[in-house]
Amino acid sequence: MNDALTLYSYWRSSAAYRVRIGLNLKGLVYETRPVHLVRDGGEQHAEDYRALNPQELVPMLVDGERRITQSLAILEYLDEVFPKPALLPADARGRARVRSLAMLIACDIHPLNNLRVLQYLKRENALEQPAIDTWVLHWMREGFAAMEAMLADAPGTGTFCHGETPTIADCCLVPQLYNARRFALDLSPYPTLVRIDANCLALPAFDVARPESQPDAA
Amino acid sequence: MNDALTLYSYWRSSAAYRVRIGLNLKGLVYETRPVHLVRDGGEQHAEDYRALNPQELVPMLVDGERRITQSLAILEYLDEVFPKPALLPADARGRARVRSLAMLIACDIHPLNNLRVLQYLKRENALEQPAIDTWVLHWMREGFAAMEAMLADAPGTGTFCHGETPTIADCCLVPQLYNARRFALDLSPYPTLVRIDANCLALPAFDVARPESQPDAA
Repeated sequence: MNDALTLYSYWRSSAAYRVRIGLNLKGLVYETRPVHLVRDGGEQHAEDYRALNPQELVPMLVDGERRITQSLAILEYLDEVFPKPALLPADARGRARVRSLAMLIACDIHPLNNLRVLQYLKRENALEQPAIDTWVLHWMREGFAAMEAMLADAPGTGTFCHGETPTIADCCLVPQLYNARRFALDLSPYPTLVRIDANCLALPAFDVARPESQPDAA
Repeated sequence: MNDALTLYSYWRSSAAYRVRIGLNLKGLVYETRPVHLVRDGGEQHAEDYRALNPQELVPMLVDGERRITQSLAILEYLDEVFPKPALLPADARGRARVRSLAMLIACDIHPLNNLRVLQYLKRENALEQPAIDTWVLHWMREGFAAMEAMLADAPGTGTFCHGETPTIADCCLVPQLYNARRFALDLSPYPTLVRIDANCLALPAFDVARPESQPDAA
């Protein structure tokens, strides 16, 4: 089906985790190229990686000669080039709903809790770990409460965020809940998110993408 | 062409600004419903708005019975429902490039400099205005340097971020440069961004979307 997909990834990066799920759902074989985000000041800042991705972030997917950055751009690309199984619904309104849910996480939760942001707060603003944890948990709670409200009792919600097959919204949800558990967030106010997360993790595509199962896991 | 598009907007919101540009590029008539993000503690937190959008953010587009949140999800929706003129290239690789550029701004610059984030830093972490300004400028510089590197001398770059017609990447770029000027960021290290911004603002669709031209502008 393809012989040249390479994913620059870090086992604990939740953005890379999204893409691993998408690749697995499509049944695509890919090579993992680990980029250690912490060791030696972060391999993503090394000259050779920056030459490939000036943003100095993971994930990056390489398909032949083409480098693609930004996890959601990668997932949209995969869905266009390898259409089955679809990661977006067929109808424009459903697609909009799925993208809104995915971007709630990818734009309004995760970027605030990214490693580089927490490093900045510690380094530049001298925030202690408790204040950083409070910051992380605050943005997760804000986002999860909104997402729970958007999903609970909504006619579009099914076994997954939208209907009966996984979409890019689920590719974002599961890694974000993984992060939440790392920070010991109480998930009981978000029963719909927890239910969908469990449904996802029962699928091999999600299970195999777990951080702990990656070749570079600590 | 349509008679039921309503945009919940705030004149200075750069995410709402993106959507205004997209609507204008499509030649779509829409009603602006202003949501004042500052007055009375923020109208986006009022009960009636939260019932419509649990994220308590702008923009939100209402198309008939359908509410769509997240600016990039709205732009993708508009591009699917009103395909001409296209806001994304026809080829998957071009589309991926445009989405990567758009998300560099929408995921990795703007969410960090959002009003709610600056309010949090001030309220919870007692950051003074100079530290907040440094924070804002830092994330802009990080993002702009990467974007400049991705655009300069790249074969895909043209009059606009990608080729000779505006895309969702330009819809994101222009509002982000508007923000940068508000914070007096030195833009001289980013000549390609500045050139493309000027090309965009020469078009009526971008010009009419300027914050100062909105009905709710202060």
